[in-house]
Amino acid sequence: MNVATELESPQTRSATGRMKALVYHGPGKRAWEEKPRPVIQAATDAIVRITTSTICGTDLHILKGDLPGVMPGRILGHEGVGVVMAVGTAVTAVRPGDRVIISCVTACGKCDYCRKAMYSHCRDGGWILGNTIDGTQAEQVRIPHADMSLHHVPADGDEEALVMLSDILPTGFECGVLNGQVKPGDTVAIVGAGPIGLAVLLTAQFYSPAAVLMIDLDDNRLRVAQGFGATTLINSADHKAIERVLELTGGEGVDVAVEAVGTPATFDICQSILAPGGHLANVGVHGKPVELHVEKLWDRNITLTTRLVDTVTTPMLLKVVGAGRLQPNKLVTHRFALDEVMKAYDTFGNAAKEGALKVILKNQPSA
Amino acid sequence: MNVATELESPQTRSATGRMKALVYHGPGKRAWEEKPRPVIQAATDAIVRITTSTICGTDLHILKGDLPGVMPGRILGHEGVGVVMAVGTAVTAVRPGDRVIISCVTACGKCDYCRKAMYSHCRDGGWILGNTIDGTQAEQVRIPHADMSLHHVPADGDEEALVMLSDILPTGFECGVLNGQVKPGDTVAIVGAGPIGLAVLLTAQFYSPAAVLMIDLDDNRLRVAQGFGATTLINSADHKAIERVLELTGGEGVDVAVEAVGTPATFDICQSILAPGGHLANVGVHGKPVELHVEKLWDRNITLTTRLVDTVTTPMLLKVVGAGRLQPNKLVTHRFALDEVMKAYDTFGNAAKEGALKVILKNQPSA
Amino acid sequence: MNVATELESPQTRSATGRMKALVYHGPGKRAWEEKPRPVIQAATDAIVRITTSTICGTDLHILKGDLPGVMPGRILGHEGVGVVMAVGTAVTAVRPGDRVIISCVTACGKCDYCRKAMYSHCRDGGWILGNTIDGTQAEQVRIPHADMSLHHVPADGDEEALVMLSDILPTGFECGVLNGQVKPGDTVAIVGAGPIGLAVLLTAQFYSPAAVLMIDLDDNRLRVAQGFGATTLINSADHKAIERVLELTGGEGVDVAVEAVGTPATFDICQSILAPGGHLANVGVHGKPVELHVEKLWDRNITLTTRLVDTVTTPMLLKVVGAGRLQPNKLVTHRFALDEVMKAYDTFGNAAKEGALKVILKNQPSA
Amino acid sequence: MNVATELESPQTRSATGRMKALVYHGPGKRAWEEKPRPVIQAATDAIVRITTSTICGTDLHILKGDLPGVMPGRILGHEGVGVVMAVGTAVTAVRPGDRVIISCVTACGKCDYCRKAMYSHCRDGGWILGNTIDGTQAEQVRIPHADMSLHHVPADGDEEALVMLSDILPTGFECGVLNGQVKPGDTVAIVGAGPIGLAVLLTAQFYSPAAVLMIDLDDNRLRVAQGFGATTLINSADHKAIERVLELTGGEGVDVAVEAVGTPATFDICQSILAPGGHLANVGVHGKPVELHVEKLWDRNITLTTRLVDTVTTPMLLKVVGAGRLQPNKLVTHRFALDEVMKAYDTFGNAAKEGALKVILKNQPSA
Repeated sequence: MNVATELESPQTRSATGRMKALVYHGPGKRAWEEKPRPVIQAATDAIVRITTSTICGTDLHILKGDLPGVMPGRILGHEGVGVVMAVGTAVTAVRPGDRVIISCVTACGKCDYCRKAMYSHCRDGGWILGNTIDGTQAEQVRIPHADMSLHHVPADGDEEALVMLSDILPTGFECGVLNGQVKPGDTVAIVGAGPIGLAVLLTAQFYSPAAVLMIDLDDNRLRVAQGFGATTLINSADHKAIERVLELTGGEGVDVAVEAVGTPATFDICQSILAPGGHLANVGVHGKPVELHVEKLWDRNITLTTRLVDTVTTPMLLKVVGAGRLQPNKLVTHRFALDEVMKAYDTFGNAAKEGALKVILKNQPSA
Repeated sequence: MNVATELESPQTRSATGRMKALVYHGPGKRAWEEKPRPVIQAATDAIVRITTSTICGTDLHILKGDLPGVMPGRILGHEGVGVVMAVGTAVTAVRPGDRVIISCVTACGKCDYCRKAMYSHCRDGGWILGNTIDGTQAEQVRIPHADMSLHHVPADGDEEALVMLSDILPTGFECGVLNGQVKPGDTVAIVGAGPIGLAVLLTAQFYSPAAVLMIDLDDNRLRVAQGFGATTLINSADHKAIERVLELTGGEGVDVAVEAVGTPATFDICQSILAPGGHLANVGVHGKPVELHVEKLWDRNITLTTRLVDTVTTPMLLKVVGAGRLQPNKLVTHRFALDEVMKAYDTFGNAAKEGALKVILKNQPSA
Repeated sequence: MNVATELESPQTRSATGRMKALVYHGPGKRAWEEKPRPVIQAATDAIVRITTSTICGTDLHILKGDLPGVMPGRILGHEGVGVVMAVGTAVTAVRPGDRVIISCVTACGKCDYCRKAMYSHCRDGGWILGNTIDGTQAEQVRIPHADMSLHHVPADGDEEALVMLSDILPTGFECGVLNGQVKPGDTVAIVGAGPIGLAVLLTAQFYSPAAVLMIDLDDNRLRVAQGFGATTLINSADHKAIERVLELTGGEGVDVAVEAVGTPATFDICQSILAPGGHLANVGVHGKPVELHVEKLWDRNITLTTRLVDTVTTPMLLKVVGAGRLQPNKLVTHRFALDEVMKAYDTFGNAAKEGALKVILKNQPSA
Repeated sequence: MNVATELESPQTRSATGRMKALVYHGPGKRAWEEKPRPVIQAATDAIVRITTSTICGTDLHILKGDLPGVMPGRILGHEGVGVVMAVGTAVTAVRPGDRVIISCVTACGKCDYCRKAMYSHCRDGGWILGNTIDGTQAEQVRIPHADMSLHHVPADGDEEALVMLSDILPTGFECGVLNGQVKPGDTVAIVGAGPIGLAVLLTAQFYSPAAVLMIDLDDNRLRVAQGFGATTLINSADHKAIERVLELTGGEGVDVAVEAVGTPATFDICQSILAPGGHLANVGVHGKPVELHVEKLWDRNITLTTRLVDTVTTPMLLKVVGAGRLQPNKLVTHRFALDEVMKAYDTFGNAAKEGALKVILKNQPSA
């Protein structure tokens, strides 16, 4: 095979041509089972052996059947850190043996969207891992457009921290903080204190807001948010979150409201607490339309944004983590061996009860 | 009276202390009647004798009873050009005798919103003329915060052109073009070819878009839009505007969609034709909520904005008009004497039938 | 006197119509002497009794004769916190008795430059205090355009901290950090670890740079910088600062270089350490031209900025201080009674020897 | 040869393995001579048969010996339109037979600079054509990173117009207009009415400036500028350009000054005519340092930029040309057959005398 440079000889590979992976078998069905090892299909591909992976809320959505585009038989997962095993002939930025972070978004780097730094809409990529192609909850994974879609792990990098750069931190930062245009001195409200809301909370602090109000139904999550830097906690179970925020802001509302849940109710809180000139940054994945009160908002000079993470800020996040200004491993609450992934899903699926944020899947350097 | 400098002596003024004005008397009722002349009330006020005024779609909304905050007895109108008659002691930028354009938005220049160039939300101003204080469809009008809210008419300025800078052109430009972030080479769709949509069309061309698609139900208006620079006309009467735009853009959608009507149906066209990364700039005044399809848009990287005109761009628009790069008088279709304002309302109220865009009200230099 | 509202009766005032002030008498000459108390001259004026003031490097420049526009007889000082004693009739934002921070820059809020948030170039203001009109190193001071040029001290505000918002912090932030466009993850070099360089250092951290390199000739100052958050210290006495920075950045150079001294030598360090795409933000006051190496820089995509502080960010800085994210009193090294100002100048004039950063002048609540 | 897809059979190619090209032989020496045809060297390469090329002012600089990095034997030229003959295996965006515009800047699309849209500083590209690798004044040329560095010619594209998108138009637009931040209503001065200054002039009009002042020593060039849209012409031969600009702007200066020559004298005009808050965009290639008057500019809030063209705006320029809003062929004054390139250089080298702007080199569809 002359289109790839490999870490192992082809013989070795073919001798061990099977691997274990977490496979989706339709709504509600998943299994840890044997699958063929991935191979280089294009000159721009890399094969990565997963050393650390994790589970995303989106994986649960797939299992609920919310994303009918994901076909049975698909290996799930779009987050991971690992070691490059083989690269196609056109790959120049990574070599076999390199330790890398896998971006949840694949980018060709050349199409019109990639040139505009909108990798999420890449003509030959976007979010495809664990969606339209096999993903990272497996011993190995094929990564298309490897030069753009992998990032080197720094010399002393902590894999558990860095796997948070696959998806959750760039998502919180790009969709919530950058789109929300958080500025020093701002009052920011984040609706939803799950992992993604907490990622927004952590990265919002890059810009020194004066106040960060965290709104959620779960007191445990709110307590975690406090430890992560939230300045005010609001439990919205009493349906009074809107009044509470307006009261706290002297009737003005907030500069930035970040929707980090994905429901009409949480969206409504966001649109109801915006100060004139405020920004509503939607991060949550929505399954149905919302009612937008343009009859109240038309003259309020507001800006509402949506975004699928582009992962364009991963190099910058790597610098901030390297400088010790961000501790992503704060998000890690549970650890499992990769082959315990079925159990890990059970834990993550009961996040509230288990107190779970991100669960780490660790792949032993197998024999 | 020592708090003001006046053009006429107080004697003259008190001798002629009455004037004619268009007065709102509750839904459906208006009259051209006598009212007391306005007087300086604060050190920052000016009194302006109207020489040219016009009628806005919002005035029709008031007459329909859509803005219950407007009280019977109110003089309508928030657009005008005139001559300064008197100024309060703290006014420094204009003097009696100066010819001025009146901004529809009053700005103190000092509050937190004014400092952020959001005059529309001025703590002691905003849109108040012909709304919460008496307006410009009268022989004279009191303008609070005159230094910020009046602009000098250039030496050779055409009043009919310049009265378009009171409201409609900054509205189209700020709410539609600036908020829509129109760029050279963009494909822009404007939904609504009424006066405000045409103001968007005229000012969008400051940024050299490659294509401007105009969407309306009225072929006459579309023809006007063509004369104003629209590159494609789409009559949406067949409910196929969305398909048509997608077809014309190779399935991609537009970079910028401007909502210049204010109904759920037109808003829906806008949200359905956005390319990934696109901007939806709302200009229309809405009376009810709209359904926002976040279930489709959450991952499309779109930006939606609302805005009440701030009139911060009036000085810039004056330069562009002065340079001959914008001909605002294109918008003028009818002319009336100010004391024919009742008839002018009839014409403007039947805009489609009358082929009316903006109707000019001309006040004769009275005896 | 009917153009002003006063805290004391006119009688009281005229009875005590003299005050003490620090007066400039030409190069090298200053005196603490009696002067007439300031009075309201315009409807937009306020009189402020100084409770806390401080000395700026620019005051030393004036004393050296570097600013020939400053006339003998001028009361120096453009920084201060105090209590409003009287206001002109057009002043609405502050009342007698209010505790206020005085901005070093006076802004009318209405001219073309003020509308563009360039208060430094206000047509009827700019930096005039202690320059073309009497300043704040006095028992009382007249503040023109009081509504725009004074900011309320928050309820629990610490005056020593807040007097840093008169000039040094907005200067460091606006001219250094905002103009330098510091971003999360950036490598920033600050040349000059004097008070202004330290103000840049403190406020640069609002944006979470990955590294802040501090360059100075004085090891004591560098040690202070380390305590303030600098990540690397470079003593440039050996003329090897440029090589050192390039070495530390792998030959790339820095994202942002801030010139905080005002000499050709320090400017040259800045222009020599910029990465392609880098920003050079000049903060220092220069007395002579510099050689700009366009023959090397023309193709480096660099941005060089100059700026006189506009103090437009003071409201925001107040929020950040209020939130505890900035401790301006770190800059205070010495305290004097206001009537010891002559001694305070001696100390500040020997900053290096005395280890002085900012010296506080405290005015006792006089009998 | 299995790493490339070719238009002709290898047999055909080897049978005609020579071509003609304009070769640099050291300062002052050039020849139209035989060279080996280029071949695919990397999987990302393309071979393009030139159909239209042109000469750049930079080519003259090379011939003067100003760029000692260019080695004798080098084929000159970095502008061209042509037909793809062969592509490497990793090329996906262009196919043999495609008509393409060649960007003067080569971009890998994957390095840190390319990800920031700074193609000019690409780690494996930048301006290399006709500089460190063979260029476009030849029958054929090898283009590295073809997917990023070639742009499709639209169906009805005029090659003479489109070859202006190789370099001169993106250079004028990116380095002059975008970096200068030209806005509607601005007063813009362009110093230098040569081809590059005229490219700035043409593209500045995308943003509807109120006035464009053109400054040059040559009345003929100024006349051309007038035809291209300049509103004021200033011949600077009398050394009074600065006074003239200040006079014309009421002493204020201009919003944007574009340096399009590359000498200390022209740079000095630019820095002397900036209004407070103004932008100085340097486009000219400088051979020596300039004196920057920071002692006057430190408090003027100015922004000075340098830039090597990134060609990131080529897709946008293609849209604007396609929409008929820009006529690049206005810049063409002379036409030669490619094999008359020696004569074309003579003409272009005597631009003033010959009235030459851009000279077209046309390659006949050879037998």
